[in-house]
Amino acid sequence: MYLIVVMSLLAIDLGGTKLAVALFTESGSLKTRHVVSLNGKSGKHVADLMTQEIQAFLPSRNIDAIGVAVPGIYSAHNGTVWAPNIPGWNYYPLLNQLKSVAGHLPVVIDSDRACYISGEIWTGNAKGCSDAIFVAVGTGIGAGIVTGGHLVRGAQDIAGAIGWMALQPPYRDAFDQCGCFETYTSGEGIAKSYRAKLIAKKNRTGRGQRQLSARQVFELYASGDELALEVINDCIMFWGMAAANLVSMFNPQKIIFGGGVFGPAIPLVDSIKKEASKWAQPISMQQVEFTVSALGGDAGLYGAAYLALQAVNSKTMKNAL
Amino acid sequence: MYLIVVMSLLAIDLGGTKLAVALFTESGSLKTRHVVSLNGKSGKHVADLMTQEIQAFLPSRNIDAIGVAVPGIYSAHNGTVWAPNIPGWNYYPLLNQLKSVAGHLPVVIDSDRACYISGEIWTGNAKGCSDAIFVAVGTGIGAGIVTGGHLVRGAQDIAGAIGWMALQPPYRDAFDQCGCFETYTSGEGIAKSYRAKLIAKKNRTGRGQRQLSARQVFELYASGDELALEVINDCIMFWGMAAANLVSMFNPQKIIFGGGVFGPAIPLVDSIKKEASKWAQPISMQQVEFTVSALGGDAGLYGAAYLALQAVNSKTMKNAL
Repeated sequence: MYLIVVMSLLAIDLGGTKLAVALFTESGSLKTRHVVSLNGKSGKHVADLMTQEIQAFLPSRNIDAIGVAVPGIYSAHNGTVWAPNIPGWNYYPLLNQLKSVAGHLPVVIDSDRACYISGEIWTGNAKGCSDAIFVAVGTGIGAGIVTGGHLVRGAQDIAGAIGWMALQPPYRDAFDQCGCFETYTSGEGIAKSYRAKLIAKKNRTGRGQRQLSARQVFELYASGDELALEVINDCIMFWGMAAANLVSMFNPQKIIFGGGVFGPAIPLVDSIKKEASKWAQPISMQQVEFTVSALGGDAGLYGAAYLALQAVNSKTMKNAL
Repeated sequence: MYLIVVMSLLAIDLGGTKLAVALFTESGSLKTRHVVSLNGKSGKHVADLMTQEIQAFLPSRNIDAIGVAVPGIYSAHNGTVWAPNIPGWNYYPLLNQLKSVAGHLPVVIDSDRACYISGEIWTGNAKGCSDAIFVAVGTGIGAGIVTGGHLVRGAQDIAGAIGWMALQPPYRDAFDQCGCFETYTSGEGIAKSYRAKLIAKKNRTGRGQRQLSARQVFELYASGDELALEVINDCIMFWGMAAANLVSMFNPQKIIFGGGVFGPAIPLVDSIKKEASKWAQPISMQQVEFTVSALGGDAGLYGAAYLALQAVNSKTMKNAL
């Protein structure tokens, strides 16, 4: 006879419009998953949704720890969250509020990009890696970076802001809002670039000119549209240069591309790697694999659960000493 | 009455032409320092010089640990050193050879750039920092990076190869040898850029045209020479962009410029910071300080001693558990 202890990890992934909630075992198996709409809620009401979810799970499910992914910056010193898409979350004291319902359970919060790479290291395409980077390309661009087994947080928790990477001088005012790399290659950047090229080509002011989405630009690219080819080829160049810089700086085992825009961009990974190969430190370039997210839209949930698991393990180790 | 225990740390900094050897206390005070010329030695003979130095110190000085800085890549897994400027050091098994004379003492080896930032964190301009980067500009360019208190090594110990940073498309064949950033802004790059501009201006082939050193180009810059102004202003732009990328990626407390070229370039740090401020993640940019090395040519020795000290402390902690 033998006993199997199965841990239960509650993961919450907050997005701009919804909350995903899931239960995981400690081996990374997803047991249940559901989504709650934010319905336009803001400030404390968003955090209240989280505490309600926690309270609904606590009595019956023997939860061991709680992990939360947030769409912004988590300040580990203060337990606060700055999230541009959640109204009123300007250094919101989330940790205290969640702890007030979690009792003695470990509660871990981190940025979505930190969770993405943690999830991929746990059960995804960077499984078991000590050195791996998740490049999240969506409306904006950010990176979750793990080096030597440690998450790169920075002095004030805002490391990984690769959307601001400087890739093409001289500086242009257009970069003010979100940085050079993001201006060209985020979902928003792709849409804007296409529109600008269209207006320039037709010699129009752009008044009344509808802006296509990044996904529509990818569809035009697939159909051979000339302007879309120009826009996406520029993206490949910049994605390649940025990835090269990550390779030279971090000497990682994996670079993983994910995020909303990387659905349609998945077929471009080989071209991006080819571009990166020109620029990057050549030995590091031989040692790295370029791939895409294995966990897709659930990467944040997996990562939040993994951070929760690590909190349990570190607590157990401390008690053992 | 009370006792003071004073530790003695032996530090060795290997350069392309000489070996610097020093003794430090555990509080970072340099007690003795001398330099041994390599006299053109190669392979095992260079390592023999090190073992001789260690053997000369061991009996009389109560050494507690030995730290060594090497000009290349140190593979922590294998204890080997790849150093392009030491003939025969192509994954040379240095750790084993040093251990053979060090007995029970901890021996720590690391790359010069890892030692530079470690030295500055110990007693220099990044004292006490958890997140700091040393940008070493000499014949080549590399960075020593500490994030969250950990040295960034990479999967195969070649992280920090920032000379390969991609900063200006399209890719040029000139970048093949040492990367885009280094091509423009290393000592060698500055000298070559000036020569190329001179040849272009005079419409000559360059045959018999003497190449000035980077230091001479800085002197011409100071005297208002037009071509030197162009070359150094380009450098300021690229140094600023590269520093901005480090700021956005690592959110560090300090960026420290050092290395041979940064003697004459010290007055440019404010201009470099101004350029970086345009490009970098704006909140991270407000949190970082740009400065120059406090330890100059001794940064490698200080860092080697600090790594040795950390080895002693970690050994003591393990024994206490």
